[in-house]
Amino acid sequence: MEIMVIPSVNEARADDLANKTVIVIDVLRATSTMLTALAHGAKEIYPVETVLQAKQLQQPHYLMGGERSCRKIPGFDFGNSPLEYRDDRIAGKTIIVTTTNGTRAIQKAGKAATIFTGSLLNGKACAEAAAALNKDIVILCSGTQDVYAFEDGLCAGQLVDELLRLFQHQRAEWGVNDFGLSMLHAFRHVEGDIPRALLQSSNGKRLCKLGFEEDVHYCAQLNQVPLVPVLREGKLILGG
Amino acid sequence: MEIMVIPSVNEARADDLANKTVIVIDVLRATSTMLTALAHGAKEIYPVETVLQAKQLQQPHYLMGGERSCRKIPGFDFGNSPLEYRDDRIAGKTIIVTTTNGTRAIQKAGKAATIFTGSLLNGKACAEAAAALNKDIVILCSGTQDVYAFEDGLCAGQLVDELLRLFQHQRAEWGVNDFGLSMLHAFRHVEGDIPRALLQSSNGKRLCKLGFEEDVHYCAQLNQVPLVPVLREGKLILGG
Repeated sequence: MEIMVIPSVNEARADDLANKTVIVIDVLRATSTMLTALAHGAKEIYPVETVLQAKQLQQPHYLMGGERSCRKIPGFDFGNSPLEYRDDRIAGKTIIVTTTNGTRAIQKAGKAATIFTGSLLNGKACAEAAAALNKDIVILCSGTQDVYAFEDGLCAGQLVDELLRLFQHQRAEWGVNDFGLSMLHAFRHVEGDIPRALLQSSNGKRLCKLGFEEDVHYCAQLNQVPLVPVLREGKLILGG
Repeated sequence: MEIMVIPSVNEARADDLANKTVIVIDVLRATSTMLTALAHGAKEIYPVETVLQAKQLQQPHYLMGGERSCRKIPGFDFGNSPLEYRDDRIAGKTIIVTTTNGTRAIQKAGKAATIFTGSLLNGKACAEAAAALNKDIVILCSGTQDVYAFEDGLCAGQLVDELLRLFQHQRAEWGVNDFGLSMLHAFRHVEGDIPRALLQSSNGKRLCKLGFEEDVHYCAQLNQVPLVPVLREGKLILGG
């Protein structure tokens, strides 16, 4: 079994993703937010790349969420703060979400056999779901505008850590690419104080400046939401 | 002061390097090897990208070194094993070296204000030399054929670790990009057993298969050669 970690969307080649199990990560905040919405009863989520695509999909009973430059899009119901999606209005609803980086990564993974979305909140559950499929695994860090983001790398390290534990238990042969090995060791070094690490990251700092420090602390919690979003026919639903 | 770590040569943009202090890293093995040659009395080293360039520069009293696919180039005096360059023939000599990745990275850094070459063997000395110049610092990992290499990232982490210690001592303001932060934490996690980490890397494994395990152990020694190669008029000499 091979585990490949890719540092940002623009370094992902479609061929590397085809027919693999792909886990897309955008810790701050898209994949943390979409997980939170599904955990609070959202029926399904359409992740789309542009505001135009979001508006084209819109139907009267759908909710609209997303951000540009970390801010809510005018006219939308929600922004991209996971805390907003713990709202009673969410239950049973279809939500269209457009975010800058996370949804781009999901689109890029289009040729994958299976696409999960991962975050620190559900890393362990994601690793278990991915390992169960017995295919090579690609962990795709979204990054921010084509630049690697520390918090996504840490989550990749968390996933590699969990996967290696699982494979060891199954006595399975495995390989990890050099980038994944680096993320594994970085994660293990900061594992005891993830919030501090996220606050050092450039997205963490930016979110704090914009008043979203609580989001950073929320997204820094390891394995607090043991659910796994999976993409089916363009929509994220809870797998399993 | 800003510290930017770049994961591999193809991700380096000339603008990011212009007028900065650049430290080029190719732990396995170019920058470890060239340092070793200078430490054993070589007068100067021409790092060149192609075998043709090496032959065009050749003069009767020069020595020729380098590799393709980890192997010595036919007709050359030396390969790319650092252990070979502890030879008595080295003292006082000009050496032309062509390696696959390290010399490409040095060429790419052409617009830098100063170019040092770093390795685990001289990380601390390199960090001190770079900090003394009071300019923004770019740490350029060579990688292997445009792919990030674990051992270069670890050396980048070692450099960031040393630089932060120096800046703290000088009470200087500093920033590190997200990739650099990740490398810092990865380095700190494996600092107690660098040889093991290098043997896990894909270059480490390849070198072992080719019979160069001793090179990997040699290159894994932290701060054993406290000297700093610097590029002057196309040639590496010892700085300071």
